[in-house]
Amino acid sequence: MNVDIGNVLTENNTPSLNTTQLERLDERVGAAHERIADGRTNDEFGYAALNLPETTDTSLVREACEPFSDCTSVLTVGIGGSALGAKTISEALGGDGAEHHVLDNVDPEHTRTLLESLSLAETAVHVVSRSGTTAETLANFLVVRETMERAGVDWTDQTVVTTGSDGPLRRLAESHDLPALDVPDGVPGRFGALSTVGLVPAAIQGHDIDALLDGAQARADSLTGSLFDCPAYAYGAVAYALDERGAGTNVMMPYAEGLESFAEWFAQLWAESLGKDGGGQTPVRALGATDQHSQLQLYRAGPRDKMVTLVRPRERGSLTVPETEIDDLAYLGGRDLGELLRAEFDATEASLAAAGCPNVRIEIERLDAECLGALLYEMEAACILAGELYGVETFTQPAVEWGKRAARGLLGGGEFEEVAAVAEKHRFVVE
Amino acid sequence: MNVDIGNVLTENNTPSLNTTQLERLDERVGAAHERIADGRTNDEFGYAALNLPETTDTSLVREACEPFSDCTSVLTVGIGGSALGAKTISEALGGDGAEHHVLDNVDPEHTRTLLESLSLAETAVHVVSRSGTTAETLANFLVVRETMERAGVDWTDQTVVTTGSDGPLRRLAESHDLPALDVPDGVPGRFGALSTVGLVPAAIQGHDIDALLDGAQARADSLTGSLFDCPAYAYGAVAYALDERGAGTNVMMPYAEGLESFAEWFAQLWAESLGKDGGGQTPVRALGATDQHSQLQLYRAGPRDKMVTLVRPRERGSLTVPETEIDDLAYLGGRDLGELLRAEFDATEASLAAAGCPNVRIEIERLDAECLGALLYEMEAACILAGELYGVETFTQPAVEWGKRAARGLLGGGEFEEVAAVAEKHRFVVE
Repeated sequence: MNVDIGNVLTENNTPSLNTTQLERLDERVGAAHERIADGRTNDEFGYAALNLPETTDTSLVREACEPFSDCTSVLTVGIGGSALGAKTISEALGGDGAEHHVLDNVDPEHTRTLLESLSLAETAVHVVSRSGTTAETLANFLVVRETMERAGVDWTDQTVVTTGSDGPLRRLAESHDLPALDVPDGVPGRFGALSTVGLVPAAIQGHDIDALLDGAQARADSLTGSLFDCPAYAYGAVAYALDERGAGTNVMMPYAEGLESFAEWFAQLWAESLGKDGGGQTPVRALGATDQHSQLQLYRAGPRDKMVTLVRPRERGSLTVPETEIDDLAYLGGRDLGELLRAEFDATEASLAAAGCPNVRIEIERLDAECLGALLYEMEAACILAGELYGVETFTQPAVEWGKRAARGLLGGGEFEEVAAVAEKHRFVVE
Repeated sequence: MNVDIGNVLTENNTPSLNTTQLERLDERVGAAHERIADGRTNDEFGYAALNLPETTDTSLVREACEPFSDCTSVLTVGIGGSALGAKTISEALGGDGAEHHVLDNVDPEHTRTLLESLSLAETAVHVVSRSGTTAETLANFLVVRETMERAGVDWTDQTVVTTGSDGPLRRLAESHDLPALDVPDGVPGRFGALSTVGLVPAAIQGHDIDALLDGAQARADSLTGSLFDCPAYAYGAVAYALDERGAGTNVMMPYAEGLESFAEWFAQLWAESLGKDGGGQTPVRALGATDQHSQLQLYRAGPRDKMVTLVRPRERGSLTVPETEIDDLAYLGGRDLGELLRAEFDATEASLAAAGCPNVRIEIERLDAECLGALLYEMEAACILAGELYGVETFTQPAVEWGKRAARGLLGGGEFEEVAAVAEKHRFVVE
């Protein structure tokens, strides 16, 4: 990706940032890069994610997916990092292969409707849970399995599992002889897009998963110790520096429908990695040009606590707007929809700059496997760099454990003291 | 809806709010209610939205939709408020009727893929633009029209228009004798869900649009001058008061897949209405339980600048998790997925409270037309009340005009000085 920070460095922004400040910060970027490089060399927890382009064995993925090459649908059963990477990749790459669906919630109506809409005998099911005990994922999988049985479909022929070396899902795979993949060691779920966790649906759809990793590898080889010649670090450092100066919100706004889930993936990466110790930017998902008609008023005229990240592919498909007899619309006739989208991007970027809202332009060449792999990799590197600058534990998510224990306790899955707090809720109802 | 603000009023929150402060604020709520009531009486711009349950003539909507009762798909071509209300309603009500698709972006690949996936002869097209000149909407419509012509489908048989009394779309409807509906007078786009703008797809799908309006009307009749006995005002006042004390972010997190678009609709309502004069909460869309595995870490452990709004229906469909031979998962067997979702909601709510993050519980009885109409109406009333308390012009969106002029200028649709600013962009590219 290319990162254009020109509209961060202009004088009238709030918050503002200048090159002198960035040069000072670059010394810390150099030190952080050393730390990251060491972590990679030693395959330390979390840092190991940046080695995935080398360590992921795509032949194992292809082999596990081979039985499903004729499937018309692939269903990911997973939640959080076990779903978002796969969703991002298959949505971005599109194509005519199997349709990708995701069960990442436990809404009974939604699960039922989705399963009823699928031709189960032609559906590959990818169940993903490192521990093999994630309540939402396993509950959904038990439902899927039974639904297949009732429909006379042998679920063991349709299921591929990605899990840790131990746990109920691993044992289930072994006892039923299911194709099974290992979640990578030392890689937190949200950093797993470029591993077995994220690649299975793309492989079943027939996408070139090697190109994804090649794109990422090229960026892995070019991480350097200065934000001024490393786009990933430029992004991470600028986001950090703007946050320190008051941009507590980071709006991720791709201009491509195929990148809608990318913004969701980014939001998890950013929120769960950096939202710690009372700090961390709040990621806000948006979509250009659609959300110009929804959120732009706030970004331009609301509180000066935001940076906006605008993302676009330089090349995209073409679709010409027909010439028209309608006078007021004549200027649209003969234009390409992509030209229109490009003009909207340029106009929004300039309108944010005119309002003094710092914004970053990220461009990729086109939305293909190689460029997508590079984009995901560089955003992960940006996040890890930002984590070093914040001085937080980038790779953990301790604050979610409280709720997990409470939910498990409420469902009778053990004794947990958090359950008492749920019962004591203070109520003040207006009805 | 019921609004439970118990977890806003607990002592250890940051930001915190107490009943004494709310009682003081309630005097201003009373005055604001008078202003709103006057606006409704006089059908003033914006306030007229709160009269829609009375003023919307559903028989005209049904009549305009009658030719499309056998359609298998309905395609809304619109953007912002011209799409989000319709999307919210049809997604929330679900059902087996025509599938609802939305063209609310100008991405050539997406528009092409979507049109290729539709059986055009069985597709009703609803084009929505008050001015009849919205670039994205009209460009897409010109493409849709030509695509139908090329496929040998008479687009004039498939199209229904909702627009203002004048403009190119109105003239087009007249010259081709298309069924045409009026956008309501005095109602900004984002407040139009309960009008012709939002109801057409639901009517084609066979939903009970009268029940939607009846549900809304019941809430219209119960708007009172105190936040302590009016849920809509309770929500609007508490959001305002928390923002004034530092909760610049409002996370809207429904626990129902059918309400995912509702959060998007809310985000437009809140951002475009209140994001003014350097203030206004930043709405963040989330979805329970999914985003517990993505955003909750940040909400609990990040900056204390948030309130979280948790929404759920009390009743929902049922889907039982089968009993299982897998030891660690035995506690899930025999449970309903809805029970699981309910436990996740309760656990998340308590976990936010335990972390001192103010949160509001909104409950509706069930996700049907009547309750949905009430929910949308009450959120609009909440927003209008908040606008009075902020003292902003709730019903305008002046900050988006700059970009619209720039984009139009870039596309050769006229001379606009904003175009010069686009050309002068300062670049600083890291690659």
